[in-house]
Amino acid sequence: MLVTHPQDFRYLTGFTGSNAALVIPVSTAAELKAILFTDGRYTTQAKQQTVGAGVVIAQGPVIREACAWMLQRKIIRCAFDAEHTTVAMLDSMRQWIPPRQRRTFFQPIQPLVAQLREIKDTEEIQLVRASANLGCSLFEQLLVHIEAGKKEVSIAAHLEFTARMAGAEAMSFETIVASGARSALPHGHATSQRLPRQGFVVLDFGVVLDGYCSDMTRTVHLGSATRKERDAYESVLEAQLAAVAAVRPGVQCGDVDEAARKVLRDAKLADYFTHSTGHGVGLEIHEGPRIAARQQQKLQPGMVITIEPGVYLPGRFGIRIEDMVLVTRNGHEILTPATKAWIEL
Amino acid sequence: MLVTHPQDFRYLTGFTGSNAALVIPVSTAAELKAILFTDGRYTTQAKQQTVGAGVVIAQGPVIREACAWMLQRKIIRCAFDAEHTTVAMLDSMRQWIPPRQRRTFFQPIQPLVAQLREIKDTEEIQLVRASANLGCSLFEQLLVHIEAGKKEVSIAAHLEFTARMAGAEAMSFETIVASGARSALPHGHATSQRLPRQGFVVLDFGVVLDGYCSDMTRTVHLGSATRKERDAYESVLEAQLAAVAAVRPGVQCGDVDEAARKVLRDAKLADYFTHSTGHGVGLEIHEGPRIAARQQQKLQPGMVITIEPGVYLPGRFGIRIEDMVLVTRNGHEILTPATKAWIEL
Repeated sequence: MLVTHPQDFRYLTGFTGSNAALVIPVSTAAELKAILFTDGRYTTQAKQQTVGAGVVIAQGPVIREACAWMLQRKIIRCAFDAEHTTVAMLDSMRQWIPPRQRRTFFQPIQPLVAQLREIKDTEEIQLVRASANLGCSLFEQLLVHIEAGKKEVSIAAHLEFTARMAGAEAMSFETIVASGARSALPHGHATSQRLPRQGFVVLDFGVVLDGYCSDMTRTVHLGSATRKERDAYESVLEAQLAAVAAVRPGVQCGDVDEAARKVLRDAKLADYFTHSTGHGVGLEIHEGPRIAARQQQKLQPGMVITIEPGVYLPGRFGIRIEDMVLVTRNGHEILTPATKAWIEL
Repeated sequence: MLVTHPQDFRYLTGFTGSNAALVIPVSTAAELKAILFTDGRYTTQAKQQTVGAGVVIAQGPVIREACAWMLQRKIIRCAFDAEHTTVAMLDSMRQWIPPRQRRTFFQPIQPLVAQLREIKDTEEIQLVRASANLGCSLFEQLLVHIEAGKKEVSIAAHLEFTARMAGAEAMSFETIVASGARSALPHGHATSQRLPRQGFVVLDFGVVLDGYCSDMTRTVHLGSATRKERDAYESVLEAQLAAVAAVRPGVQCGDVDEAARKVLRDAKLADYFTHSTGHGVGLEIHEGPRIAARQQQKLQPGMVITIEPGVYLPGRFGIRIEDMVLVTRNGHEILTPATKAWIEL
């Protein structure tokens, strides 16, 4: 099996570089250990970090060297991850294989490592927890910076500075600070727009700590809210709590989504809930499982998912509330316990 | 032609969302205009941003809707970008096509849009210039923060805060602050390691401004340097200047790489220069052309490339010096004119 997706080979070996081909031989005949092929930029780093695999520094393309290694050892078939291999990459991989084996050598498989990664072990849960805790503490420190007239991007700057000073390696995605009518953009990255005197501010952000991502959203209000804004907030909160309450082992992901959607349907807001309820999170910000309509996959202990319903009234306002939730043996635990109560600044 | 790579459909239409399928029909029979299919999260944003294409908000997967649209219009063949389409995506695209057309409908092509993007037009050059200027000014403001005992990550935090307050949408990659022996890691992201009293600090960073990336590296020295460190710095600088001097229209990228490599070979440091000399930069941090050994592609006016030779002595020290360089009609222009003189702090 060939593993080329960075978070996958990191998960399996600890190597955090961006370019490698990990070959995991399966053979009943000979004892072959896994080999990580990487490039000269990572000579020192690969040797320091890699556990459970030999390290080879490739002189040319890492895939070429990996193919040569397999062919020398009479390996005749190699599984690859169809979800992280482009059509062009597969073509180029095949050119290193002799013509008579070319058609059969590489075999696409389901993303096996991604499936393993959905269930976090004890050590990973500690890392996710640390990342989520940092996210929560950032939100609390951020509130003092939120005031009318400040640019969205300056709110993001303070958030990210505090994150970095606390040791975050990076933000897990481009910080969303979406204020006023921009709050109706579910992916409204911070711009130079100034915060209004009255209106919502959606804050959606996450940090990367020891490789693990956090992800949370809170929506606060500047100035006094209209009845409609306040009611919509309460509906989103109710939907979020309903979906969180549905999280336990054995429940289908689609049912968790439906728990949120039903509340918003009853409040006549379902048409404005234009995305799915959540996603797994770990070494990547978006992992399995998908918490979306009709998803039959069942939750299992050790999964870490987001629950993030929202409503978006184009040109008017938007609201989203998001927690990270750990599926436990008996139910769930919220990893981002920052307050979700109405906040008016 | 189907365009699904975010920077490609942004380049063609202005839409900055993360999920879309842009269909560009070519027909001699009927007048068909390009259509951008995206999802409900982008209802407002897509209509605000998209120029030169109609917008359709897909109810299900954007590719499914794009396929249905093409089939309805009797389109029989669709080019796709093999470099940005995974094997799994192609499989899933094909499921929306009737069995008898399935084998022939999708045709892989060379990355046409990526080729267009290599040559920046006047407006793009202004945007790249603004991004590069911001990068330069960050470096100058950063120097006061660099002192022994501070954590690498706190240097990154100050840099990124200043970037954000100046309007950067994001950093163009994870900031590298690699000090002491860590400077020998070409991709040494800022860690909680404290800056040493004596040794190099490699600072490699970039900002995203209006979508366009900057990328520059400077290496400074804390405390007094050894003769060997100082000599190595002068060699890297000489290599960098030689490669920059080689940049002009019509020159092969491999010759620019060789200009840097030759200087380091003469200084007996070529074995420690373990990566290529540079890459194109624009809407993405790594674009074409590749400035690497034996690359026959020729430079053309409007290309923006990095020139970034370095040497890395494992366990000892590393040095890299990087500029962004615009290929002009007659030669080149350095877009990151911050000093490359020896800096001892």
